[in-house]
Amino acid sequence: MTGRLTHLDETGAAHMVDVGGKAETERVAVAAGSVKMQSQTLELIKSGNSAKGDVIGTARIAGIMAAKRTHELIPLCHPLLLSKIAVDIEADEGLPGLHVVASVSLTGKTGVEMEALTAVSVACLTIYDMAKAADKGMIIQNIRLLRKTGGKSGNWSADATGGK
Amino acid sequence: MTGRLTHLDETGAAHMVDVGGKAETERVAVAAGSVKMQSQTLELIKSGNSAKGDVIGTARIAGIMAAKRTHELIPLCHPLLLSKIAVDIEADEGLPGLHVVASVSLTGKTGVEMEALTAVSVACLTIYDMAKAADKGMIIQNIRLLRKTGGKSGNWSADATGGK
Amino acid sequence: MTGRLTHLDETGAAHMVDVGGKAETERVAVAAGSVKMQSQTLELIKSGNSAKGDVIGTARIAGIMAAKRTHELIPLCHPLLLSKIAVDIEADEGLPGLHVVASVSLTGKTGVEMEALTAVSVACLTIYDMAKAADKGMIIQNIRLLRKTGGKSGNWSADATGGK
Amino acid sequence: MTGRLTHLDETGAAHMVDVGGKAETERVAVAAGSVKMQSQTLELIKSGNSAKGDVIGTARIAGIMAAKRTHELIPLCHPLLLSKIAVDIEADEGLPGLHVVASVSLTGKTGVEMEALTAVSVACLTIYDMAKAADKGMIIQNIRLLRKTGGKSGNWSADATGGK
Amino acid sequence: MTGRLTHLDETGAAHMVDVGGKAETERVAVAAGSVKMQSQTLELIKSGNSAKGDVIGTARIAGIMAAKRTHELIPLCHPLLLSKIAVDIEADEGLPGLHVVASVSLTGKTGVEMEALTAVSVACLTIYDMAKAADKGMIIQNIRLLRKTGGKSGNWSADATGGK
Amino acid sequence: MTGRLTHLDETGAAHMVDVGGKAETERVAVAAGSVKMQSQTLELIKSGNSAKGDVIGTARIAGIMAAKRTHELIPLCHPLLLSKIAVDIEADEGLPGLHVVASVSLTGKTGVEMEALTAVSVACLTIYDMAKAADKGMIIQNIRLLRKTGGKSGNWSADATGGK
Repeated sequence: MTGRLTHLDETGAAHMVDVGGKAETERVAVAAGSVKMQSQTLELIKSGNSAKGDVIGTARIAGIMAAKRTHELIPLCHPLLLSKIAVDIEADEGLPGLHVVASVSLTGKTGVEMEALTAVSVACLTIYDMAKAADKGMIIQNIRLLRKTGGKSGNWSADATGGK
Repeated sequence: MTGRLTHLDETGAAHMVDVGGKAETERVAVAAGSVKMQSQTLELIKSGNSAKGDVIGTARIAGIMAAKRTHELIPLCHPLLLSKIAVDIEADEGLPGLHVVASVSLTGKTGVEMEALTAVSVACLTIYDMAKAADKGMIIQNIRLLRKTGGKSGNWSADATGGK
Repeated sequence: MTGRLTHLDETGAAHMVDVGGKAETERVAVAAGSVKMQSQTLELIKSGNSAKGDVIGTARIAGIMAAKRTHELIPLCHPLLLSKIAVDIEADEGLPGLHVVASVSLTGKTGVEMEALTAVSVACLTIYDMAKAADKGMIIQNIRLLRKTGGKSGNWSADATGGK
Repeated sequence: MTGRLTHLDETGAAHMVDVGGKAETERVAVAAGSVKMQSQTLELIKSGNSAKGDVIGTARIAGIMAAKRTHELIPLCHPLLLSKIAVDIEADEGLPGLHVVASVSLTGKTGVEMEALTAVSVACLTIYDMAKAADKGMIIQNIRLLRKTGGKSGNWSADATGGK
Repeated sequence: MTGRLTHLDETGAAHMVDVGGKAETERVAVAAGSVKMQSQTLELIKSGNSAKGDVIGTARIAGIMAAKRTHELIPLCHPLLLSKIAVDIEADEGLPGLHVVASVSLTGKTGVEMEALTAVSVACLTIYDMAKAADKGMIIQNIRLLRKTGGKSGNWSADATGGK
Repeated sequence: MTGRLTHLDETGAAHMVDVGGKAETERVAVAAGSVKMQSQTLELIKSGNSAKGDVIGTARIAGIMAAKRTHELIPLCHPLLLSKIAVDIEADEGLPGLHVVASVSLTGKTGVEMEALTAVSVACLTIYDMAKAADKGMIIQNIRLLRKTGGKSGNWSADATGGK
């Protein structure tokens, strides 16, 4: 842990970090999160899904599209030329609920952690939206970075204790 | 809990629910979520904040702006004329971290649950972004609807057990 | 056919038509279009579709989301509170290709023809995008209004000769 | 024609193709399409145009602006740094109607076919919008890729039989 | 002049003013601004304009489109259903430069001052962009509200001394 | 001053300048502008600011976010990968009002003048929005480029006479 917030200048005003002098490197970030719901809600999603796959398919598309708009949503994020976005969603009867994992990569001057986290968040929100008529008590939880590679700060991986 | 997903038609294909026949009523939704972090990270945010307020102030603005773009992010949400969006962010040394609460209201034909949840999510993502140089292990958690009022489905409130 | 272009004022400069004095009525517009492709391409889409439904499911979502952004894309369109957007996509071995039909409704002061046509166009573009690795010669054709109801200009329906 | 849909992974789920390993090359794509209308409608557009050029001028601007937003509209398109967008619109009394041709270029890792096709589509939609008070029966037709150059898949040109 | 900033709550945190209780009234706002330039630059624009009208025509379209996106740009503005947007641009050899006037109207719960000011600002920026290869020293000046009508605060008109 | 408008082709139609052949260089642009207001309004902003800093903090964020969307607002601007955006806002009792300075940089093929000017414009509009309940007569003035560096056209600096 470093002891400063790089978005704050010496007077405390918010600014975008200058990435002009950074090298272009291959960067990957993987983030995850979950939507916890009643088991009947999960059954509804799964059965709807086995017919046409729409809750999970729609949430996946929403997550991918949101990753591309991260810099419009998060005030101090840089616009980036993402090379790849993948969003995987899996049912977990034990939760019960759905787990979302997003993986984003680019060759560029700054990392893609926020893009992966945004993809996860919007996929989870879409799941909530599509199932909320059945279950308003769903909880979106445990949105976190799993790992990142590339860039000056190097590789980083969440502790096992930060897992799902 | 009702037994159907209103976004899925009889063949399972995703569609927007038709709200044309619904009455315009006053509607309010309140959602909440948290960012859990190391206590030193919270201290950094608070000290930066006491000087210029930028992490919390920026996250609040980001949440308000995101609520207005909910229908662009969530595929099956309707565009809405929101009357009010408020985002409150509070430090909690016990977590340690920050709690975010968003309240959205409108007079219209459909509810604003997704707008409140989107405001909370993007405010949390902004907090993560602004503090991630210090602490990549922060976790966004417990994003949920606290209550809604108005509309045909009436009032709803989260169980005490769903609280923070 | 009336003899003027309502977007042009008396000096020929483009402007938005003033809808302030119009009554709020229930309005519906239905538009259609097709993507013509090689029959092997259609087979690929259908087989991919039978497994996970992704080409057609993704194009449907893209069309719905694009309808909501019509006023951002078409310079003189008004922002509207759409009540419903539905996009249906069907395979036609005789074309060979896919037919797209979009239906949009609202209670408001101006019609939703452009929203329906935009949904069809973007759904067709998405189909092209997802199958272009196999077939760059696909043609998007016959995008047209099928019918509209409501509003001062009343109901309108395409001639049978304008059909597919 | 290759036998796979590169947007579908082995399980059929939609994903963005990874372009991280691709070389940056000069790429150009040219697409075209037409709006067929009554000859009186074309005369109205042309006479409005000879005074102030607004239908054609507005449609050209709309097409250029839409090309820049392709990745927001088409779910699996990559964000790109376009170097050039040109949209040409020409009257054809024989159709009767207007022909639209868009040319897009960049130096980058993936092609710009979708950007050219999106520019054509939105220019055609704008023409429809600006003339629909006079003629709702207009048909947008024959939107297709004319040619592309650059990239690993090399050059491609539509058959003469695919022409207008 | 009233003595408070309605966007600031009692603790000073930014929030959207609640317009839920306001009546829907007819509202109009008119704003203006100018781009001052060298007289040769104005001649270039006018001669280009007399041939095809593109600088002025493009700036007019850009202003109209920007008004529709005001709530995305200005953090605490409400989304609105604008009924009409008009942008007029006129050459003034005495300045020398161009004057821009935007008029926006709606029937709704809050005023459209910001929409009119945003249309003027973006039209002026577009003029600068299109002529900057010839003249980087242009100055955008005197952007102001000329008048507003409707709403609880009633009519307002700029002093003669605030004029151009 | 050069004698042509590079956005106009030989027939006068608007087009995006082709930057494909340009070299990637380090580019910086600095722009400025002011909001003139009554001295009581400035006092309100400053006192609100001393408590929570919200008018100035919100305007700074709005300016930064708008710079990232310049290519969506200005029809012929290229999408760019900005490396840095900074917006500084300072009170001037002598005006009375606020001065806004924006500095934008990137390594790329085209300049960032429009991004800096857009950041200034939207920051000024946000100040107007947040203080307009107290003072509708505020004037946004003197928006101009202060200097640019990098690119084929080299460095440029406003005359001392163009200053504030």
